[in-house]
Amino acid sequence: MNLNSLQKLGYGMYIIGSYKGEKLNAQIANTVFQITSEPPTVAVSINKNNLTHEYIKASRVFSASILCQAAPLPYIGSFGFKSGRDVDKLANVNYKIGETKAPVVLDHATAYLEAEVTQDVDVGTHTIFIGRIVAAEVLTEDVCMTYDYYHQVKRGTTPKTAPSYIAEAKGGNK
Amino acid sequence: MNLNSLQKLGYGMYIIGSYKGEKLNAQIANTVFQITSEPPTVAVSINKNNLTHEYIKASRVFSASILCQAAPLPYIGSFGFKSGRDVDKLANVNYKIGETKAPVVLDHATAYLEAEVTQDVDVGTHTIFIGRIVAAEVLTEDVCMTYDYYHQVKRGTTPKTAPSYIAEAKGGNK
Repeated sequence: MNLNSLQKLGYGMYIIGSYKGEKLNAQIANTVFQITSEPPTVAVSINKNNLTHEYIKASRVFSASILCQAAPLPYIGSFGFKSGRDVDKLANVNYKIGETKAPVVLDHATAYLEAEVTQDVDVGTHTIFIGRIVAAEVLTEDVCMTYDYYHQVKRGTTPKTAPSYIAEAKGGNK
Repeated sequence: MNLNSLQKLGYGMYIIGSYKGEKLNAQIANTVFQITSEPPTVAVSINKNNLTHEYIKASRVFSASILCQAAPLPYIGSFGFKSGRDVDKLANVNYKIGETKAPVVLDHATAYLEAEVTQDVDVGTHTIFIGRIVAAEVLTEDVCMTYDYYHQVKRGTTPKTAPSYIAEAKGGNK
């Protein structure tokens, strides 16, 4: 079988925020999706090794900022290839504390939502957090970034901790 | 809060196939996403009222054909706004029986995958079926259709049974 077919699945690009006690963190994710409309519910898949995973487990909330197509690659990289255990990812970023108390990143975001976790689904290396939306705002009408654009135009790469990481990205058959 | 922010989430467009006994069916979905890379695992959110839901529950398998951007609106509509209870959706469509025995629709598809269900997650109106990939092929290098393109360019609409249905699509604040 040719797992390159997985690279044809469509996604957006998001910054997921959460907190634990006084500590805040945020990370890049591409797997945010609406799963029911009534009540409005979304899900996100997060690697168990990520600090944001620990924070969502603790606070039971997360935010998702939806990135615009113009978001610069270094900006995206600062949320995706560094751990909040080593650096304060929010040090030089505009954000606000949302209704859920999770940080909501505002730079290069066209919209955001905040959710309270109602179910954790253990899927091995990752957890799917399912959350009911408790806050949502549109910020701009800028074009949203797709995961495909990030790869094809921005030449962005995917960390090993992502659900969509493929070891031999151009290698083909496995 | 403004639930229009949900319309900014990014998706592709897929035809989900499954079977029950001798019967085959397929439906449009936008919420297919990879959730782990090792093992390669995907998920799809399907409305409990849909015939395909009943078939996936019965056979524990599904296929997902990834649509190209050029797929015609009537073709998409034939899978999205009709029920397999009333019409044979596969009557005039090229498809094959996949390794899972699910039908794999080939017209206007750039790639496909087949999965065996490992978990059902009850999320109210919908079930998230989580499946391990057992077959996957790339068919063409055509541009894939995004859900946004379907709405903005194709002027496609969303049935009430979709996870991403919003009652007052242009209404704004709820």
